[in-house]
Amino acid sequence: MRAILAVLILYCVGVAYASEQGHPLNLMPLPSSVQPGTGQLVIDTSFSVGVSGPGDSRLGRTLELFLGDLRRQTGMLPLDMKVTDPAQASLAIHIDHPTKDVQEPGEDESYSLEVSPAGGKLDAATALGAMRGLQTFLQLVQATSEGFAVPAVTIHDQPRFPWRGLMIDVGRHFIPVDVLKRNLDGMAALKLNVFHWHLSENQGFRVESRHFPKLHEMGSDGLYYTQDQVRDLIAHAHDRGIRVVPEFDMPGHSTAWFVGYPELASAPGPYQIERKWGVFDPAMDPTEERTYKFLDKFIGEMATLFPDKYFHIGGDEVNGKQWDANPKIQAFMRAHGLKNNQDLQAYFNQRVQKLVSKHAKTMLGWDEILRPDLPNDIVVQSWRGQSSLAQASKQGYRGLLSFGYYLDLMWSASRHYAVDPMSDAAADLSPDEKQRILGGEACMWTEYVSPENIDSRIWPRMAAIAERLWSAQNVTDVNSMYERMEATSKWLERYGLTHNSNYNVMLRRIAGSDNIMPLRTLADVLEPMKDYAREETASVEPTSLTPLNRLVDAVRPESTRARQFADAVNSLLMPGNVEPDQRKILRSHLSIWQGNQTSFPSLDNQPLLLREAGPLSQSLSQVAWVGLQALDYLDRDERAPDAWKTEQLAILQHAGEQKAQLLLMIVPSVQKLVEAAAGATSK
Amino acid sequence: MRAILAVLILYCVGVAYASEQGHPLNLMPLPSSVQPGTGQLVIDTSFSVGVSGPGDSRLGRTLELFLGDLRRQTGMLPLDMKVTDPAQASLAIHIDHPTKDVQEPGEDESYSLEVSPAGGKLDAATALGAMRGLQTFLQLVQATSEGFAVPAVTIHDQPRFPWRGLMIDVGRHFIPVDVLKRNLDGMAALKLNVFHWHLSENQGFRVESRHFPKLHEMGSDGLYYTQDQVRDLIAHAHDRGIRVVPEFDMPGHSTAWFVGYPELASAPGPYQIERKWGVFDPAMDPTEERTYKFLDKFIGEMATLFPDKYFHIGGDEVNGKQWDANPKIQAFMRAHGLKNNQDLQAYFNQRVQKLVSKHAKTMLGWDEILRPDLPNDIVVQSWRGQSSLAQASKQGYRGLLSFGYYLDLMWSASRHYAVDPMSDAAADLSPDEKQRILGGEACMWTEYVSPENIDSRIWPRMAAIAERLWSAQNVTDVNSMYERMEATSKWLERYGLTHNSNYNVMLRRIAGSDNIMPLRTLADVLEPMKDYAREETASVEPTSLTPLNRLVDAVRPESTRARQFADAVNSLLMPGNVEPDQRKILRSHLSIWQGNQTSFPSLDNQPLLLREAGPLSQSLSQVAWVGLQALDYLDRDERAPDAWKTEQLAILQHAGEQKAQLLLMIVPSVQKLVEAAAGATSK
Repeated sequence: MRAILAVLILYCVGVAYASEQGHPLNLMPLPSSVQPGTGQLVIDTSFSVGVSGPGDSRLGRTLELFLGDLRRQTGMLPLDMKVTDPAQASLAIHIDHPTKDVQEPGEDESYSLEVSPAGGKLDAATALGAMRGLQTFLQLVQATSEGFAVPAVTIHDQPRFPWRGLMIDVGRHFIPVDVLKRNLDGMAALKLNVFHWHLSENQGFRVESRHFPKLHEMGSDGLYYTQDQVRDLIAHAHDRGIRVVPEFDMPGHSTAWFVGYPELASAPGPYQIERKWGVFDPAMDPTEERTYKFLDKFIGEMATLFPDKYFHIGGDEVNGKQWDANPKIQAFMRAHGLKNNQDLQAYFNQRVQKLVSKHAKTMLGWDEILRPDLPNDIVVQSWRGQSSLAQASKQGYRGLLSFGYYLDLMWSASRHYAVDPMSDAAADLSPDEKQRILGGEACMWTEYVSPENIDSRIWPRMAAIAERLWSAQNVTDVNSMYERMEATSKWLERYGLTHNSNYNVMLRRIAGSDNIMPLRTLADVLEPMKDYAREETASVEPTSLTPLNRLVDAVRPESTRARQFADAVNSLLMPGNVEPDQRKILRSHLSIWQGNQTSFPSLDNQPLLLREAGPLSQSLSQVAWVGLQALDYLDRDERAPDAWKTEQLAILQHAGEQKAQLLLMIVPSVQKLVEAAAGATSK
Repeated sequence: MRAILAVLILYCVGVAYASEQGHPLNLMPLPSSVQPGTGQLVIDTSFSVGVSGPGDSRLGRTLELFLGDLRRQTGMLPLDMKVTDPAQASLAIHIDHPTKDVQEPGEDESYSLEVSPAGGKLDAATALGAMRGLQTFLQLVQATSEGFAVPAVTIHDQPRFPWRGLMIDVGRHFIPVDVLKRNLDGMAALKLNVFHWHLSENQGFRVESRHFPKLHEMGSDGLYYTQDQVRDLIAHAHDRGIRVVPEFDMPGHSTAWFVGYPELASAPGPYQIERKWGVFDPAMDPTEERTYKFLDKFIGEMATLFPDKYFHIGGDEVNGKQWDANPKIQAFMRAHGLKNNQDLQAYFNQRVQKLVSKHAKTMLGWDEILRPDLPNDIVVQSWRGQSSLAQASKQGYRGLLSFGYYLDLMWSASRHYAVDPMSDAAADLSPDEKQRILGGEACMWTEYVSPENIDSRIWPRMAAIAERLWSAQNVTDVNSMYERMEATSKWLERYGLTHNSNYNVMLRRIAGSDNIMPLRTLADVLEPMKDYAREETASVEPTSLTPLNRLVDAVRPESTRARQFADAVNSLLMPGNVEPDQRKILRSHLSIWQGNQTSFPSLDNQPLLLREAGPLSQSLSQVAWVGLQALDYLDRDERAPDAWKTEQLAILQHAGEQKAQLLLMIVPSVQKLVEAAAGATSK
């Protein structure tokens, strides 16, 4: 209810500002309560910020980062704004109590922000709350007739879930530190607080180990993080109120470990770094004591390197084939009454859990680790769904939702937005059980993700998930979400995120030319196939060495243009619609798409990478032509003949099929136009 | 002659490729000789590079940087291309002899590149030549029907001048290390080889000094480079074949030194960091031995930190007022027979030169240091012009040209391009004297330059100067230069240079909105005022604290659109022109400009920063309307009445005046249209 009110209030603020200043408040994630005041706080070169309350070592850095952001936003210089005594400050921050040295889930992140023409007051329980409030303050800054200002407003805000994360898989494709850092900046802007670092995979082991140097030396192709880089990244995250949870996947997904240490595996080596994608046979040998000796020392080393209380052991997708084939393992299972591979893995997990616990960490793992024989303090991360999460919670375990938040599946932001950790099976949990659902994590698996396109796979859709995890459950207005997400997307560019800029870079490469207009017109209405269809439709099996420079790697996961076109078509076809210009606008879009083919290079020896665009361009032209005909019928208020409809639907069906693993996203909307044209005469 | 041939050959290559692959070779700077061959060398994931010849420690890094660039260009992954045995390599590099440990001007940078379908061969005298040749190779990569390829070609190339530099003033506004690094990357791409780091100014002393910590602690507002950062930057430059020459300006331009060490000055302190721009009174006291003791120790420290053989002492713009006012100094001058302040500064320079020399460095300074009493090994950097350069050379001194290469003066690329170190007074020098002209340096003074807009002040115009300093003297085709410069501008974005991307970022801030189309249409035909007019027309005196977020800070130094419009007008008005579509194209441009005003926000309370655009937008509309009328007359083949002409010229005169320190660059072209319309009837 509070959140609905907030939406209503925000809407009013938006309207008020739309008339006074020309733009709405684009707060994302939406705060719990937003109450507009009168007037505004001017932000000029004399702006200052100060903090009172118990000392917190990280606050100095927080203020510097905040002023840096504010300067970038307003185009001011390093000496233009200052940290000062809070009594004199334009924005006075008060902190109630210090944060823990090592950030923990559930630390109070709430804040209240009160802005009036005389100044701003930010009251927060902790430095973490202050960080979140400062991000809100930055989002409030607007260009005004006096320069820049924050409108008078009172905001009370706190997160719905204590665990709001993003997982990045750096195993399948290595992602350099600078790319991770800018993504951490983006996370902080969206009030996310956990970076889950998936550090080992069949395709690569990515951290320097001093105890077991062959892990990174032989398991990474030289692509790994030094321990100094890890510490540097953790400090970068810490400055932004983000925890870093490392994951070392075991006993499966571990081929890269075995390249240097084949004795850990359940079948004799030698092993090579895996180049293909999928689930593979190699798994650690859970029956050998040397495995646990190794893991004890390894976990000990990593437990020191990564200060976070939580330690993720993966635990997913063990196919058990190496175990089945090893007589010694089979004998062990019989001797210990382990009936199947699930039992064997549960035994392994129990042993590993004791090691994790010995090194003062709490264990985290994917669904598969859930067995009642593990202690209640472990956390289960669910890629399977809310029912699996509910089940864990009922058994007393804490859980995180990742099902529905897989960014690599190329879902629309609205589809992710609709996934709630507390819905479906989780909706029926008791209050206590619900309490154990800590939040969620988006997952960026990187089979088809490189440092060049990772930002565009994460942003801006990640913002919708961030809002789901921060804002109240009933904040569900998709139109409002999209509007604020588009603004957020631009906003995020300030951190050097390349989700927008690399789109053009990649299209230029594909076009082999600086003139990308026709290609971009096409690419703007394309999306990659969804879920795992790319894998299923590949003509040549992709590997970790396959360049990610195709059109499908460049186009955005969600086409804004196609979405807006769909909205316009839906609104046109709504009964009672009398918008006179709407058809004109639709017609002008369709005309551009229809004509785009003519300016599309069609040389026989066109660049190889551009060749994939050819059939899609042809489809775009055809579909647009179908749409124009349908509009003609609608304009003339004439019912289109059935034969015409049949013919057009066949064209659309063909155009709707994947080409080069890409989908033409305007097809469903044009189909609606065709059906409307051939249906009852339109109004 | 060789160069003319090269231009002709290049032109042919361009045409050949325009028909075969759709794009010309965009080599910049233009090599000495380019001879096209048959076929192409395919660049795919199996591409490899190897090197033979005497070991050179920097080559390993060179190859890694090259492969990184090549991967970025083709969208390939870190494991896709390899360094390998040169006998097996797709591109085999051979080096004749190693480079010196500390790079020196005049080291051989020549190379020959031979590419055939079977492979590439790069022969270079040194690793420096190999670096230059690899940049050429990268520029040759094209998207082809087989993926990517380099066309078969034979190139022989060497620089015209051994000293091709860019100076960046980090004193007036501090420029962070990451910004400098990406500019070094851009320099390397253009085969530049000297980064001249102007490290101290009245407004800031920017290097950590361990001997004299009050220099950076009190003289920098906390904005300085640590010695580790300096070393890191020098290593970054070294990897790219770029020397780093530090400048510490003395005895003037030195207020920031005196904040911590007032005893160095010629008048008692205290001193404060200067916030204003201009020439100021404070100068070191050349009559006190403690000055030289200080400088001895200081230069010693910096001579160790900066390995380059050359050490720049500035020496410019001493107004002598502190000296005139100090009786002790006056007495000293009388006692030593120093007739005027020039004599006193010459005395200072001689003393400092001995210190520089004692620390095994060669002294460099601006024109003012030139006095016959200095030893012949010093180098004079001329901001005054070729005559000053010629004079130095005749006296046996080596020289560098910077006159004509001041990027802060907002000249067009073609104007910089026309400045040749060997022209004017220097043209008459003897061969020996010419030999002493080492090259030139572009200068980026930063009164109105911040980390946000510095890239756009340097690039792409710097590419024209780079070509002037590398390519033969008779490479002067301005159209070819602009064509290649535009391609280079896009190319440079790969290094994270923000000359294009920050334009939109700044316009969005000014517009206070993500919709910048109307503002951008206007900004695209604006340029900042030239030379020092911005200073002269400022309504409020600007300081180092003044935000650089105005329209004049965002618009590009040279308007591509206005240049192209001017070309189109010139070509239309050329006698005998029969291009039928030209008027249509001009008309469509003019119509867009004329109508732009209507979509321009005109609210009373529009954002402050946008307000400056209002009168300019109005002018644009008016000027375009004048142009459309002129085209009407020309279309009707009707002579426009004199009264009309007078009226239009008055409108144009008003529109041509600066507004908000910006110039509307289409005015001269429209004036030509008006004059043609009112002149003899057109054909």
